[in-house]
Amino acid sequence: MLRYAKSVFNVCSQDIRDVMSAADRAHMISFTGGMPDKRLLPVDEIDAIYCKLGREVKQRGLQYGPTGGYPALVESVRCYLQAKGLPVEHHRLLITTGSMQAIYLIAKIFLDPGDRVILEHPTFMGAIAAFKSFQAALIDVATDEQGMEPEGLARAAAQPPLSKFAYVIPNFHNPWPYSMARKEALLDILHQRKLVLLEDDPYNELYFEEAEQNRITPMIAMNNTGLPICYTGSFSKVLGPGMRVGWLLGPEEIVRHAEAVKQSIDACTPMFTQMRANEFLISPRFETYLAGIRLAYKQRGQTMLAALDRYMPKAVRYNRPTGGFYIWLFLPEGVDAASVLHRAMPRGVEFVVGKSFDPQGVKNDFLRLAFCHTAEENIEPGIRVLAEVIEECYD
Amino acid sequence: MLRYAKSVFNVCSQDIRDVMSAADRAHMISFTGGMPDKRLLPVDEIDAIYCKLGREVKQRGLQYGPTGGYPALVESVRCYLQAKGLPVEHHRLLITTGSMQAIYLIAKIFLDPGDRVILEHPTFMGAIAAFKSFQAALIDVATDEQGMEPEGLARAAAQPPLSKFAYVIPNFHNPWPYSMARKEALLDILHQRKLVLLEDDPYNELYFEEAEQNRITPMIAMNNTGLPICYTGSFSKVLGPGMRVGWLLGPEEIVRHAEAVKQSIDACTPMFTQMRANEFLISPRFETYLAGIRLAYKQRGQTMLAALDRYMPKAVRYNRPTGGFYIWLFLPEGVDAASVLHRAMPRGVEFVVGKSFDPQGVKNDFLRLAFCHTAEENIEPGIRVLAEVIEECYD
Repeated sequence: MLRYAKSVFNVCSQDIRDVMSAADRAHMISFTGGMPDKRLLPVDEIDAIYCKLGREVKQRGLQYGPTGGYPALVESVRCYLQAKGLPVEHHRLLITTGSMQAIYLIAKIFLDPGDRVILEHPTFMGAIAAFKSFQAALIDVATDEQGMEPEGLARAAAQPPLSKFAYVIPNFHNPWPYSMARKEALLDILHQRKLVLLEDDPYNELYFEEAEQNRITPMIAMNNTGLPICYTGSFSKVLGPGMRVGWLLGPEEIVRHAEAVKQSIDACTPMFTQMRANEFLISPRFETYLAGIRLAYKQRGQTMLAALDRYMPKAVRYNRPTGGFYIWLFLPEGVDAASVLHRAMPRGVEFVVGKSFDPQGVKNDFLRLAFCHTAEENIEPGIRVLAEVIEECYD
Repeated sequence: MLRYAKSVFNVCSQDIRDVMSAADRAHMISFTGGMPDKRLLPVDEIDAIYCKLGREVKQRGLQYGPTGGYPALVESVRCYLQAKGLPVEHHRLLITTGSMQAIYLIAKIFLDPGDRVILEHPTFMGAIAAFKSFQAALIDVATDEQGMEPEGLARAAAQPPLSKFAYVIPNFHNPWPYSMARKEALLDILHQRKLVLLEDDPYNELYFEEAEQNRITPMIAMNNTGLPICYTGSFSKVLGPGMRVGWLLGPEEIVRHAEAVKQSIDACTPMFTQMRANEFLISPRFETYLAGIRLAYKQRGQTMLAALDRYMPKAVRYNRPTGGFYIWLFLPEGVDAASVLHRAMPRGVEFVVGKSFDPQGVKNDFLRLAFCHTAEENIEPGIRVLAEVIEECYD
């Protein structure tokens, strides 16, 4: 019956589904999806917020809201971003159903079939799926320890036909957060090429040390060139992805279009979740809570690092995270992440293979370990198994 | 900067935004949007449900869920639809972020630019916007007191190039619910032409009399031809649109694709709202609550009808609703709904003009009055003003 459907239809989504449901397979030691540990989620804080809401507010929570977002939340997020130095005055803010929706909206506005998008490698698999669903051509640029490589970006940006936009996640998704100097270099190239930037920053709050804040300034806050930048963030990695509350900050014209498109996608983001996000964001508990989860994730990251240092063969390289949820493993030559996974799963350990993060879906000599949702006592045993398996693969 | 954006980009969304925010303009008597009365929303029931949820469930409510839906809700909706006689065994069910998302997903799967879609006239403006956002060509078919006209459908379905699908709302949106005989006739034509049907049924629970249930059998439940039918419904008109919980029931192949696309749109529908919808759906309060709102909306419909019978000039025709939220006014020749609105708004009354519901956005000799969210004591005064205004327009 799908002969009636689109001539071309391509989504690389099975990977995501696998990741999402992985944490439910309780017998596995899972290093897969980027979901927060449920034990760290702010259930008590949310309870307290719910109980304090008046009847009138609860009624509004069950009603349609403005497509642009629950007005109080729009205002709170605006202040929150302003306090981080983001240029909210010259930009428009839209509340989205997770930052996934913000990425999708930009894709929907910009991409005709065959249009090019520049992405870093590795990147977020959800973004790959969103761009591919519009039949975009994905141009990937390698990253090094400073971020996306400027020469690669310059080459990709010069390639005709010109790309519609570039998509980056400068902080804590990819192995290394972008350095300030690199961000400036990239902004220069983008500006020269008049290329729109989509900056995705869902892990911004999850730095392990206060000093790290100096490095993670969003590119939209460094931009004085007039380059159009769309910035997206989310409460998912902080308050919980089940909330599905994110935002898009960008030039008036782009965000106005995004809002119009959102009307025919879900009309508005659920009101109740927006209300709870708002109450939490403006409460004094927010900072205390953040401090707590930063410490918890830092400890898990350190536990995983210690286990890697102890067990992993020397030929395996990995980053030492300064924030976020992930450690990336670069495998010895000739070892494929799929064959590692194939051997690891029967022994009760799972992770996401590198090619899921490759815009071309090919390169597989690396893999991603999430330490965010794994019980701390399982991290070392999981890494030990993984080290054994990798050793077997290249023996 | 939008020179980078899509070559063609067309949404007719301002209308919807106006409708959504209308109820906030407290000084107006508003007959605009199809939102339930906030005073009728089940705040106490939702409170009771929230307080009974265990800590473990609340944790899950803050976590990512499966893209297909919260498993308990998927099961409850399946049983709920099965009890209504829907063929759930041979179909796949997907929970969506409102039924708006279900409609959007079908559009996203099926529509390449220039593809045709058949719609009834009048129709849901959100669906018009969704289809237009994929640059579809909209073919409209008139409706009469039995539903979509079979001759019109046969003509539209025969027109090459063949349409991708037909979209209908058989119950309580348009002036008259489809008759059983008409639904059978339409199914025959669709089957002959092998045309996919998208059946949108958000008002199914809102019949005013028990006997009406015999008439509102969904077409998917009457289909024994193998014709592919996608059926969408929602908790929006019942438990509250702020929940954003709807569903799509359809052939395995189509819904599997829709689920894959949903992953890159919002990953999953917010878990907490799904949990609350589930608990409410399976609770004994659900039926009692439904009985209460059916009665309340029936009373408002009757109040509006009585006012129309009393004040409206004889040249104005209107339907006598047997369910749902709306009465449609067909204006005397030469009277345009825009000029009526233009005169009515300064006198504190608003409604939605006919052309918002016309797939071509032109025909404007009719208008829609929603009686669902207007305080009962405001209905008669609002209709009196409207009658005066219409009389002035064709004097």
